[in-house]
Parts: sequence; structure tokens; C-alpha cells
Amino acid sequence: MAQIGREVYVIGVGMPKWGELWDKSLRDIFVESALLAIDDAGVDHIDSLIIGSMSPGLYNKQEHIASVMADYLGVKGIPATRVESACASGGLAVRTGFMEVASGMHDIVLAGGVEKMWDGEDFTMVLATAADQEYEAFHGITFPGLYAMIANRYLYEFPDTKREDLALVSVKNHKNGAKNPRAQYRKEITVENVLSSTMVADPLRLLDCSPVTDGAAAVILATKEVAEKLNKHPFTQIVGVGAATDTIALDKRDSLISFSSVRKSAEQAYKMAGLNPQDINTAEVHDCFSIAEIIVTEDLGFFEKGKGAIAVREGKTEIGGKIPVNTSGGLKSKGHPVGATGVAQIVEVTEQLRGESGDRQVKEPKIGLTQNMGGTAGSSVVHILKRR
Amino acid sequence: MAQIGREVYVIGVGMPKWGELWDKSLRDIFVESALLAIDDAGVDHIDSLIIGSMSPGLYNKQEHIASVMADYLGVKGIPATRVESACASGGLAVRTGFMEVASGMHDIVLAGGVEKMWDGEDFTMVLATAADQEYEAFHGITFPGLYAMIANRYLYEFPDTKREDLALVSVKNHKNGAKNPRAQYRKEITVENVLSSTMVADPLRLLDCSPVTDGAAAVILATKEVAEKLNKHPFTQIVGVGAATDTIALDKRDSLISFSSVRKSAEQAYKMAGLNPQDINTAEVHDCFSIAEIIVTEDLGFFEKGKGAIAVREGKTEIGGKIPVNTSGGLKSKGHPVGATGVAQIVEVTEQLRGESGDRQVKEPKIGLTQNMGGTAGSSVVHILKRR
Repeated sequence: MAQIGREVYVIGVGMPKWGELWDKSLRDIFVESALLAIDDAGVDHIDSLIIGSMSPGLYNKQEHIASVMADYLGVKGIPATRVESACASGGLAVRTGFMEVASGMHDIVLAGGVEKMWDGEDFTMVLATAADQEYEAFHGITFPGLYAMIANRYLYEFPDTKREDLALVSVKNHKNGAKNPRAQYRKEITVENVLSSTMVADPLRLLDCSPVTDGAAAVILATKEVAEKLNKHPFTQIVGVGAATDTIALDKRDSLISFSSVRKSAEQAYKMAGLNPQDINTAEVHDCFSIAEIIVTEDLGFFEKGKGAIAVREGKTEIGGKIPVNTSGGLKSKGHPVGATGVAQIVEVTEQLRGESGDRQVKEPKIGLTQNMGGTAGSSVVHILKRR
Repeated sequence: MAQIGREVYVIGVGMPKWGELWDKSLRDIFVESALLAIDDAGVDHIDSLIIGSMSPGLYNKQEHIASVMADYLGVKGIPATRVESACASGGLAVRTGFMEVASGMHDIVLAGGVEKMWDGEDFTMVLATAADQEYEAFHGITFPGLYAMIANRYLYEFPDTKREDLALVSVKNHKNGAKNPRAQYRKEITVENVLSSTMVADPLRLLDCSPVTDGAAAVILATKEVAEKLNKHPFTQIVGVGAATDTIALDKRDSLISFSSVRKSAEQAYKMAGLNPQDINTAEVHDCFSIAEIIVTEDLGFFEKGKGAIAVREGKTEIGGKIPVNTSGGLKSKGHPVGATGVAQIVEVTEQLRGESGDRQVKEPKIGLTQNMGGTAGSSVVHILKRR
């Protein structure tokens, strides 16, 4: 990696309430988030639009959505690009917007994400297109099944970890999400609730799994000059960016209990930022299943391999703990409209760094991290944000 | 637009034969093109991968293809991004790769495109997802129908243009494509062939329409330092980049006979390059239907509005004419695997600038242009390449 051309700041964020949005169309949902972000930034125009979305073609029979959204937002004419990497589409949209500003191509870029998953298609089938069609999905396995294999292996390798520890991830994230007005499921749950919920794929039960969600999120990225001129919010700079891939099929991996794409994307972001895991004050990570949060927090370097679940048990990832994780409620409680998730993570961390998170505010964080991944970590994107 | 951070060069190109590739999988097709480009460049690694593809989810039940391809190419681990803007996906992939190099993020980026359209899905239905689902496709109209309305309006507004002139676009492009070993349909056709071919949507007949194709193309983008160090080919720099959008629904447009996204994307690219339409020596444009090439060559500034068809009749767009257009055979004869088309245009122009186009070589071109669009120009991407 060479020197990055220009510094990039998050100058505006927008995210409406997520859930089953039966009364809104795909374009309604996205534009609502975009207008919130534009209003928050206080800009009178945007130069370009990047949208992360996994499967609008399969869910909504609409490809070409970047042009659709530019028009519906009232800015037709500007360049607009959709990027996709399954559930990491949102993270990659932010990374692509970062490059658009850093390269000198444009000064003010809206990076957003959207997914409307409840519109009729079989979402389990659609999500399975993020797995290897020829070696996994063809044989009938779905994502809960893939993550269940990962969970079983983890529990086998690290017998100090108990089944209850996985449940504690969901309990913590629902506790945070209950304080987030935009979360899909705003209620606290108990370990007993998790352990008695419907079995999905042994050992994972319904309350170990992130839900199916309609939703969008958007951020405005801009140069330092634009941020300083507007001077509206505390300056939040993207100081680290990383992206990496892995085989999307699990059977091709050396290990089921560590995600190399997460390690590599984090390494790049830490290197660009000149920071270490110990420097992070708050993090949003990809808890599509309870086991995922545990493995990811280890691969990000917050905890030693095999100690992630124990850290949850000890309260280290709670608000007020050593490293608060998923203060937003995470995918589990906030919801997981797949293409929007990576962008919503940037929304949460930006608000935390600004001190705008209300009841779930971490105490004066200076540096935050987001980690968003596709499939069973066939792709991963990490961003590090710093309050200037 | 600010100053672009770093210069970007096309240092390698790859494109295998296109057609109905029943004996190859989606991943086979892409990797074959990527290996050709890597070999042509003479690089021993790539830092990142960008893939343009419109609908692998709908055609092949496989999203998340950037990770799939990175793995299958033997470079798993590197960042990989899919970008989509319907039939302009390939052009946007090159633009995104350009930003990745220009921003300082990476030095050597592979930008490719792929579509495998013959795998079973109803391709007319899939292509219709590039039109407005709520205002166009829902009512049953398909792309030949949309372009037929455009053609009828053009013939009405410019009565000097004859139906036969549209046919001459297909005749010229098949003449060029017959000399391109990688074209799907390598045979010359006559005006009579076009006018007696099956009616698709009046006035457009089968031989006015680009075909359904399986295919891929790839280019390697790199910094000036990398290009100079390898010193393998004449230096081909991307000096202009433009992208723009329009409503994707035709009924929202002011005019059917001019594409504002084409004009805007061209304007950006000319401005960045400091060049005018008169400076272009060879061009690849998006002739998805015969009428499209005529309108696009006008909107690019090669000819006055209303004079594009007459220019074809007068031989101005032939090899040896004032401005040769679609020396590759264009979408019509070479084929149109939608996500790959914009990348293949860069392949053709790069080879023309290098002087490697054999029987269809333009005489010593110094500057070439590519124009790739989505839907009925709901998006358009323009690149200008210069031989240094």
C-alpha cells in the first residue's frame, strides 16, 4: 500500500428504523436513509453515490439500483455504483467511497447500503447464493448449517467455552439493542430464552441467529477541506481501511475456528492507521450468528484465540467493559438487511465518537473499529475511525 | 473533480473467445480471461481484484463472486469487489480499479468482467431487471421494445435517416467482427440479411440486436512506476474517466433521441483528459441495438445530432474512415456478455493503441475512447486511453 492520496472524513450519517417494512418500497427505504445522512452532513449536493446491496435482483427483481436510487433521491446524472460482496456489500461500499474521495475523483460521496428481504422470495435460498453454489449450496446446506459446524468445532477445540457463553453474545447484544431506537428487536432476552428457543441447526437456536430485515443506512464521505468548511460535527476520520477474501467454501479452509479474511483485513487497517487492537475503544462486528462474534473478536486481536467467549462471560465486551462490542445491538438485535449492515456499523461508530449514542454511549471513545463480512467470512472489510 | 492522485496505466489485457460456452463454468470463463491478462502484463502478482457482473445471482445462483474468483484464480486473500450497473458493470469495474490505483490503495489491480447468460434462466426476464421494475418491466416491456420506441422516434425526428441506415451499423460491425478471432459471430452480413431477419420489436429485427453471450474479459491496471519497470508494451494510460446516470425509465426522460448520461460521462472524461471529440482516433461504443450506436456517436460529439446514421452510410465509422467505431465487431458481432462488455472495450482499444489488432488495425491511433452503458442509458461510463 502506498501513501493514500487524500484524507477522508465521515461528515454525515443516516439510518431510519429497521424491521419488516411492508409499507415501504426498496427505493423508499434507501432514499430515507440518504436524506437523513445528507441532512446530518449539511451538504447541499453530493458528487457521487455508492450503494452496497447483495441481491436486489433476486429479492426485488431490480438490478441497476444505483441509477434507480440516484434518480429517486433527486440527483440523477451523478455517477452511481453498486458494489456487492454478499453480507459485506455495505463495508465494501464505504471502502469504494473512500477510494473515490482519496483518489481525487470526487470531494463529497454518499456511501449507502440497502436490502429489502421480506418482499416475497425465499430468503434462505437467496442468502445461500453467498455460499459456494457448486460445492455447498447445491448440496442443500444453508448458512445456519455452515455456522453450526463452526460452532461445534469451536466448542470441541475449546472445552472451557460452554454453550451458555454463545447465548451470552445474544443476551448482551439485545441489552444494547433495547436502547437503540432504530433496532428491529428492542427487547432484552435471557440465556434461558436463547437455550429454549427453536433449534435451527444444532447447536444454534433461533436466538443465536440474526434476523431477516428490511433496512438501509448511509454515510457522507468527504475531504478534510469540506469537513473543515462545514465544521458541523466533531471531525471523524477514516484512518484505516482493510479488505480481504478467503475461499467461500468451508471445506477448502485450513481451520474452521479462525477467519483468515478477518485477520488480513484487520492487519491492513491497523497498518494504515498505525494502530493496534489495544487502541480500539469501541467496535461493531459481524455477529450474524453468536459464534461469529466470538471468533471475529479473537481474529481482530481483542482477545487470544479460544478466549473470546470467556471474555463475553466476564463482561469485557459490554458497554463499560474493556472493549465494548456491538453497542448498536449488532446484527442480532438491530437487524441484518445484508447490504446495509456494513454501512450501519459506520453510522454507530461515528455517533459513538461524536458522543451522540444516548443511553448506550461508551465513555469518550477516540478510536472505533467496524468489521463486516460476507458468507462464512469469504470476504471481510475493516474500517478504523478516529475522532480528530 | 480535483487533481487525480496517481497516473493509471493499462499494462495487460486478456479476452478468450466468446460464445455459447456450454462446456465451461462461470468461474472457468472468468479465470481464463484473468490469466491471459496477467500473462500479457508479465506481473507475478495482483494486489486487488474488481469484477463487473450484472446478474450472477439470477443467471447462476451465485452472488459473492469476487471472492469465488479470487480463490479460483489462486489469489485468495486479496481484496475483491464486484460492481454492478447492469450492462455498464464492466466499465464501472475499470473505473473502480482506476480509483483503487489512483488513490494509493494498491499498485496493481485486475479489473475484469464476466457473464454466463446461457445457463438456464430466462435471459429476457433477467435483462429486464435493468429496466425500471415498478414502471417498465412490471408492465411487460423488454429491452428490444424500449429501444424500438427510441428507434421509431429517431426515424420520425430525422427523416433523412432511412431504415437501411440502421442496418448498416450491423453490417459494419459484422464486417469488423469477422476479422476478430474472439467474436461470437464471425461472419459478414448484408443489409438484405438484416431487413429480412425475424422481427423482434418493430422496427428492430434480429440482426439489429446484440446476441446473448457467455464471456469474460480482464485488464491489469497499474501505476506509472510499475508500467515503466515492466517496460513490456507501449505505454497506454487512462487519461480520462467519466460516469453518469439518468432515470432508468424512459417515460421520465425529456428526450428519447439523446442520452444525457452519455453526454455527461463523455464531458467528464474529455475534461479530465483535456481533449475533444475530434482528438479521438478509434472508439468502442455500446451498440446493444443498431440505433444505440447512432445515438451514442452523436452524444459523444463525433457527429451532430441527427447525422449519426448518415455518417455510417458515408463510411465515416469504418476502419479507415474519419472515426472508426467498434473495430472489435462491437456488441453486435463480438457478443454481449453484459458484465464483460465494458472491460472488453478497453481490451480492444488498448490493442489498437499498441498496434496489435491485425487485420482490423486502425492506422497508428494515439487516442482511443470506450463508452459502455446500462439499460437504455440509465448509466454510462466513458474512458479515454492515450498511447504515451
